[in-house]
Amino acid sequence: MKLICAQSELNTHLSLVSRVVPSRPSHPVLANVLLNASVEKQQVSLVGFDLSLGVKTSFEAQVEQEGTITLPAKLFCDIISRLPEGEIILDDQTSEAMVTLTCTSGRYQVRGMGAEEFPELPLIEESRITHLPVDALIEGLRGSLFSTSSDETKQVLTGVHLTINSDGMEFAATDGHRLAVVQTPSADEAPDAEADRTLEVTVPSKALRELERMIQMNASGEAVAVRFDQGQLVCEWANQRLTSRLLEGQYPNYRQLIPRQFSRQMTAERRLFTNALERIAVLADQKNSIVKLSLDSVKQEIVLSVEAQDVGSGREALPAQISGDDLDIAFNVRYLLEGLKALNTTEVQMQFNTSTSPSILTPLGGLKMTYLVMPVQIRS
Amino acid sequence: MKLICAQSELNTHLSLVSRVVPSRPSHPVLANVLLNASVEKQQVSLVGFDLSLGVKTSFEAQVEQEGTITLPAKLFCDIISRLPEGEIILDDQTSEAMVTLTCTSGRYQVRGMGAEEFPELPLIEESRITHLPVDALIEGLRGSLFSTSSDETKQVLTGVHLTINSDGMEFAATDGHRLAVVQTPSADEAPDAEADRTLEVTVPSKALRELERMIQMNASGEAVAVRFDQGQLVCEWANQRLTSRLLEGQYPNYRQLIPRQFSRQMTAERRLFTNALERIAVLADQKNSIVKLSLDSVKQEIVLSVEAQDVGSGREALPAQISGDDLDIAFNVRYLLEGLKALNTTEVQMQFNTSTSPSILTPLGGLKMTYLVMPVQIRS
Repeated sequence: MKLICAQSELNTHLSLVSRVVPSRPSHPVLANVLLNASVEKQQVSLVGFDLSLGVKTSFEAQVEQEGTITLPAKLFCDIISRLPEGEIILDDQTSEAMVTLTCTSGRYQVRGMGAEEFPELPLIEESRITHLPVDALIEGLRGSLFSTSSDETKQVLTGVHLTINSDGMEFAATDGHRLAVVQTPSADEAPDAEADRTLEVTVPSKALRELERMIQMNASGEAVAVRFDQGQLVCEWANQRLTSRLLEGQYPNYRQLIPRQFSRQMTAERRLFTNALERIAVLADQKNSIVKLSLDSVKQEIVLSVEAQDVGSGREALPAQISGDDLDIAFNVRYLLEGLKALNTTEVQMQFNTSTSPSILTPLGGLKMTYLVMPVQIRS
Repeated sequence: MKLICAQSELNTHLSLVSRVVPSRPSHPVLANVLLNASVEKQQVSLVGFDLSLGVKTSFEAQVEQEGTITLPAKLFCDIISRLPEGEIILDDQTSEAMVTLTCTSGRYQVRGMGAEEFPELPLIEESRITHLPVDALIEGLRGSLFSTSSDETKQVLTGVHLTINSDGMEFAATDGHRLAVVQTPSADEAPDAEADRTLEVTVPSKALRELERMIQMNASGEAVAVRFDQGQLVCEWANQRLTSRLLEGQYPNYRQLIPRQFSRQMTAERRLFTNALERIAVLADQKNSIVKLSLDSVKQEIVLSVEAQDVGSGREALPAQISGDDLDIAFNVRYLLEGLKALNTTEVQMQFNTSTSPSILTPLGGLKMTYLVMPVQIRS
C-alpha cells in the first residue's frame, strides 16, 4: 500500500470513524480502523465497527499501490490530528502490518494488524429505499432521541421506533413517562410500488445520535437513503455509510396513548415558559423535581410553583392564552424542559384534560411533533 | 434586611464567591455565603470561606435596611444566574433566616442560616504591603503554578513559594522533577523602610489559582496589595479580597539547584518545538512518556524521537541555533510541554551540560522565567 493524501481530509474522516470504535473492544482488532486504499477509485475508505454500530467513509487520495490494513484508532487519530496541514504519505513497505507516515516535519511508524480479522460491515442487498431530506431527518432525530430510556434493561425503549410509509417517516420514543412523536416527509417524489407497505423498526439510540452528528456535518446536503432488513438499518449519503443492528422486541402501541380530545388548552411563548421553568427547577430539583402548573383563565396567565420543604419555595407567572376551566396539574419539571427544548417554534401549545390524564405539548407551526407527558399526582 | 440590586451585579459577585464554598463543608454553615447589607455604605458584601481559602467581594446596592444572613451558595447562585436582567429585591422580613427574592417574573423564598456561626475571615492588621501590577502577578502565577506537586503528601511542594524584597516578588514551584522560577517587579515606587527585609512564604496552589482567575476579571486594573503574617496571606484590590492560610514547613533551597554555567545551548521557535513535541507525545505517552532530544550542531537542527515498543516510533526535526558539542538527552515529554506552554515568547532557549545534569528552558525576551528540568537516563 502506498498513498498520498491531505492531512485535513484524513483527519476529518478519521475522527468521524474513530467515534464508533469501542474503547473496550470484544476483540483486539475492533480497537482499530480499517483502512483500504483503491488504485482504481483513487480513494481511501475508513471503517470503524463495534459489531453493532458501523461507520464507513471515503475520500479522494493519490493511491499509488493498493492495500488494506487496520490501525489503532485512537493513536492514529491523535497523531494525524496534530500533524501540520499539507500532504501525508502512508505506506506499509518497511514491514508487515506497520505503516510509515511521512509528513513535512517528520516520520512516524505505527504498528497495525492485518485486515483479515476485521469483520465486514453488514450489507443490505435488496430492500425498499426511502430518501429523507437532511433537515427532516435531523428534526425527526432531535425531536425523539431525548425521550428514549437510558435504562439498558428496558430493551426496545432504549431505541427510537421508526415507521416508514408512502408519506415519509415517523419517529417515536418513550421511556414510559413521556412520549415524543415526530412526522417527517420523504424526499421521494414517485413512491415505488412497494411504498404502500408500512415498515416498522426500532433502532438503538446510540446509532441514531451518531447519525444525527454525522449528517449535521454533511456539507453536500444530499438526501439520506435509509434501508432496512430483518436485523439491520443502513443509512447512506454522499461518501458515507452508517449501519446499525436493530433492537428486537415488540414496540408499545404508542398511538393509542395520545388522547383525541382535550378540555383545556393554553398557548405560551416558548422562551418565557422555558426560562421560568429553569428557575423553578433549581428548587424543584432539591426535592422531587415536581412543578405545579396552575391555569388561570380569568387573568389569562399560567402560574408555575414549587414547594421544597426546608429549602424554599418559588412562584412564577407568565401570560398565556387559556381556554377551558382553571386547572392545577403537576409534572416532573425535567420532562417539561426537555420537551420544550426539542421544540423549535416561538409559541407552544399545551393541552390538558384532568390533573391525572396525559397532557400534550406541541409546537405552533414548524415541525409535526407531539410530546405527551404524564402528570404527577400531588396532594393539594 | 432589605435591599434592591441589579441581577447582573449580584450574579457576577455571587459566582466569584461561590467557587470557594466547599461542596463537602466541615460545618453546615460553610456551605453558605455570608451576605451583609450596609445602609451606611449602600453596599452589599458577600463572603465564601472554607476555613483555609476565603473570598470577600462587595458591590453597590440600594440598601433600605441593614442585615446579615447566610444562604446556601449553590442553590442561591443557581437561581440568581437564571433570573432575567433587571432589579431584584431581597428581604428577610417574612420569617427568620428566610430570604424573599422578588424579581419581575416571580418570587422565591430561600431558607438560610443566621450569620452568627459564620467564621470571620482572617485579618492582618499590621504588616508590610507590596503592591503588584495585575499583569506581573498573572505572569508570576501562570509561570509557576503548573510546576507545583499535586501529591497532597508532599506538603510545601503543593504550594508556590513567594519571596518578597525591595525589587518585587519571586514565584517558585517545584514537584521534585522540575522547577519554575519567575521574577516580577513591584508597583511600589518608594519602598518603605522595612523593604530591605526579605519575606518568604509558601501559599497553597488552590488559593493562587483562584487569585489568578479573579484578577484576570479585575476590570479596574488596580494593582493588587499583598500582605502576609505568620499564618496568612491577604490580597486586596478594588472591592475584592482573597485570604489564604500559608503552608508550614521549610521550602527547599531551590536557587542552588540552578546551574550557573552551561556547555551547550540551543534556541528554537517555541511554536514549532511545542507542536513537534505534541505529536511525539502521542507515541511517548503509550509507554513511559520519554522523548529523546538530539542536538545536531552541524545541521543546526534538533531531532526529537520516540521509541514505543510494539506500538510504533516517531522522529521530528526542527531548525535550531545550536552552540556546543552534539548531545543526546532525554526528558519526560509532559514536563517539557508544560514548561513551553507557560512561556509566552516567540523563541525559547534551552541550555544543557551533560545528559544527566539539569537543563534549563528560558523565554527569549519577555518575562524573567527560569524552568529547570531534570533529564531521564536512557540506554543508548
